[in-house]
Amino acid sequence: MALTVQNPPGLAAQVSGERFLVRYRLRGGPEGAATEAEALAAARELCLEQTVEFPGDLLPPGAIPDSIVGRVEGLAAGGPGATGPGHWLLSVSYAAETCLAPGGRLDLVQFCNVLFGNISIKPGVRVEGFDLPASMLAGLKGPRFGREGLRARQGVQDRPLICSALKPMGLPARDLADQAYRFALGGIDMIKDDHGLSNQVFAPFEERLELCAAAVARANRESGNNCSYYPNVTGPADQVLSRARAAAQAGAGGILVCPSLVGLDTMRLIAEDDGIGLPVMAHPAFGGSYVTSPDSGFSHGALYGTLTRLAGADSSVYPNWGGRFSFSREECASIAAATAAPLGGLKTSFPAPGGGMTTDRAKDMLEVYGRDFLVLIGGGLHRRGPDLTDNCRYFVSLLEGM
Amino acid sequence: MALTVQNPPGLAAQVSGERFLVRYRLRGGPEGAATEAEALAAARELCLEQTVEFPGDLLPPGAIPDSIVGRVEGLAAGGPGATGPGHWLLSVSYAAETCLAPGGRLDLVQFCNVLFGNISIKPGVRVEGFDLPASMLAGLKGPRFGREGLRARQGVQDRPLICSALKPMGLPARDLADQAYRFALGGIDMIKDDHGLSNQVFAPFEERLELCAAAVARANRESGNNCSYYPNVTGPADQVLSRARAAAQAGAGGILVCPSLVGLDTMRLIAEDDGIGLPVMAHPAFGGSYVTSPDSGFSHGALYGTLTRLAGADSSVYPNWGGRFSFSREECASIAAATAAPLGGLKTSFPAPGGGMTTDRAKDMLEVYGRDFLVLIGGGLHRRGPDLTDNCRYFVSLLEGM
Repeated sequence: MALTVQNPPGLAAQVSGERFLVRYRLRGGPEGAATEAEALAAARELCLEQTVEFPGDLLPPGAIPDSIVGRVEGLAAGGPGATGPGHWLLSVSYAAETCLAPGGRLDLVQFCNVLFGNISIKPGVRVEGFDLPASMLAGLKGPRFGREGLRARQGVQDRPLICSALKPMGLPARDLADQAYRFALGGIDMIKDDHGLSNQVFAPFEERLELCAAAVARANRESGNNCSYYPNVTGPADQVLSRARAAAQAGAGGILVCPSLVGLDTMRLIAEDDGIGLPVMAHPAFGGSYVTSPDSGFSHGALYGTLTRLAGADSSVYPNWGGRFSFSREECASIAAATAAPLGGLKTSFPAPGGGMTTDRAKDMLEVYGRDFLVLIGGGLHRRGPDLTDNCRYFVSLLEGM
Repeated sequence: MALTVQNPPGLAAQVSGERFLVRYRLRGGPEGAATEAEALAAARELCLEQTVEFPGDLLPPGAIPDSIVGRVEGLAAGGPGATGPGHWLLSVSYAAETCLAPGGRLDLVQFCNVLFGNISIKPGVRVEGFDLPASMLAGLKGPRFGREGLRARQGVQDRPLICSALKPMGLPARDLADQAYRFALGGIDMIKDDHGLSNQVFAPFEERLELCAAAVARANRESGNNCSYYPNVTGPADQVLSRARAAAQAGAGGILVCPSLVGLDTMRLIAEDDGIGLPVMAHPAFGGSYVTSPDSGFSHGALYGTLTRLAGADSSVYPNWGGRFSFSREECASIAAATAAPLGGLKTSFPAPGGGMTTDRAKDMLEVYGRDFLVLIGGGLHRRGPDLTDNCRYFVSLLEGM
C-alpha cells in the first residue's frame, strides 16, 4: 500500500542530533505491562504518542521515524518508587528540535507537551525525571537569584530562611498589613500572601500590595530587619504580569505565583522579566493531581524540583511530611535534592516545605534538608499566643540556635 | 487564650449570601474516612483548607467562620463513580465573594483555586461537579458559538461534525498545507493542527498558518465546501494571544489551544477576545493527571465538560472509549452530558471524542452521543489508502448515511 506521508528531503539536516532524555515509570502487574514484550510495546506506543501521534506502520522508513519519533534508550524492571512487582523504568530520548523554536531557544510549553502531553491521559505512566543537554538549557534563565542570591538579599547565611503567610481570607488589607508589620518586626525573612488572597473585595490586590509593602518597609526601617513581602499575583491571565510589575513598583521583595493555575510558562515570564527583577516563589495550588497517584503524573523531585526550577522559581512551596498532606520524608528529600542538582548553568532554588512547625519538627527538618531550606510557618505563628512579633522572634531564635 | 485574628466589622456586609456548591467525593475505606465522623472531620478540614487555610480553633466566632469558611451542606455514603465501599459524597458551599473580583466579576483562576487549590494535593478527594448561581456565571461569556453557532458556521445540521488533524510532526509547512488542501476538498468540516505542532523549525507557526489557511481557502473556493482551519496557538505565555490574533488575521476558522499547558484562563481570554472572534477547541494535552486516578482530581464531566465550557471552549477534545486511552463509555457520555447541561446563560459546546474511527464505532458513537458531537479522525484517514481526499469523502458519507 502506498503511504500518505513521505519523509521530507530536508528533515535530516534540520535535526542536530542533540537529544534529551526522559525517564518514565510504566505500571506493570495485572493492570499494566506484565511482560517485557508488553512493556516494550507500550514504550514504543509512548514514543509515537508523544511526537508524531501517527500509526507507526504508516510512517515510511527514513528521517521521521529515525529523528522525530521518540527513541527507546532503555527498559528495565523496577524503577524508583515502584509500587508493585513488574513495574518498568523506561528511558526515552527525543530530538531537541521537537521543543525548540526556530533560532534554537527552548519552548518550555512545548517541552512539557513532548514530556507528558497526551501520555498524561494514560493511567500508569509517571515522569521520574529528565535530563536536558546544556544546549537546550541555555535557552532558559532559570532562577534569577537561586539559594545564594536569596540568602544575600535577606542577609541570612547560617540558618534556614523563614517565611510566614498573611491570612485568613476575609481580613481587610489594613489588618493584613498590620499582620505583616508584626511579622516583619519579629524577624521573619519573607512574608507571602496566603495563596487564597487574590483580588477579592475584602482586600483588593492593589490596596493590599500598597499597604503590606509599606508596612513591611516601615518595620524594616524601625528594626533594621530585612524582611521581604511576596504578594500573590495569581489571577486572570491578562493581569498576572501587570500585577507582578505593580509589585516591583510598590517595593515588594518577591512574587508569589501558582504555576498550575496560571500556566508554568507565565511563571517563567515573571522570573525572566528584568522590569520585575524579583525572586519568584512557586505555590503548588491546583497542581496536586500530578503527584497524588503513585503510578501516574510526576515524581515529586521532577515536578516541584526540576520543572519548577526550569520555570524560574527561586523557591518551591510544597507540604512537608507529617503535616496535613501525605508527602513522605523521602519524597520531600527528593524535592530538595532536585532543587540543587546540576542543571546546566541554572542556579539552584530553595525547597520551601510548609506545615506544622514545632521544635521537634525543626530538628527533624534540619536533619533531612540541612540548613538550606525555606520553612513556611502559617498557623503555628498564631497558635503560640496573641503577640505575633514575639511568636516570630521565638521561631527565628529556635532555628538560629540549632 | 486571646486570638491573633479578629472578625473585621465590615465583613458581613461584603458577603452577599450568594454561594456556589461543589460536590466532592472523599475516599473511604481503610485508606480514607472509614466512619461518618471521620468523613465529617475531613470535610471540615477541606472547608478550612480551601478558604482561610487557618486552624479552625484559632478563628473567633463571627463573620469569617460564618461567611468565608466553606460550609458542609451535605454528606452521604457513596457517590457517583465510587470505587470502593465507604466512599462519601460531600457537598460544600462557598461564598461567591471568595472568587469574585471587586465589581463582582467571576475570576476563573480564583474559582479553580477555591474549587481545588490546596486540596488537589490530598489524595482521595475528587471534584464530581459544581453549581454556580446565575449571578456568578454572568461574569463569564462561555463559548462564543456553541453547538448551534458551530453548526451554522460549518453549514452542517444533520450529522456529527468531522475534524481531522495535520500530522506528523517533522513535515514541512508546505506538506501540511497540501494535506489540509486534500482534507478540505474531501469535505472534512474542520482541520486542526496536531497538538504537537507548535513552532518548530520543521514548520514554523507563521509559515504553517499562512500556507494552511490559504490551502483550505483554495479548496473551499474550488469545491464550495466550508472547511475551517484551526491552528494550534499553544506556545510561550507571551505569544499565545498574538498567535491567536495572527490566526484570525490569516483567515483561520478556529483556534486550537491546550489549556493545561497555557492555563485555563488564557483559553478564556482567546474565547472572549472580539478581535479574534473565532471558535475555540480545547485539547487535553498535559492535563490527563486530573482524571487518571479514579479517586482524585476531577470527574470527566466536570473537567472536559463544565470547566472547559466555563473557559469558553466551543468544543472539547478527549479520547473516545475503546481507543488508545482508557476512558469508559460512561465517562465519555458524562462529558457529552456536561457540554449540554444548563449553565446559566452560557452556550453549549461540542464533545469532541477522538480515536480509532471505523464503521462499527461510528454506529456506537451515534448511539451514545446522538448527532451532536464532533468526531476527530486522525490515523484512520491515512490508513484507508493513499488518496486522502477520497478517504475523507468516505468518512463524511459514512456519517451522513447514518
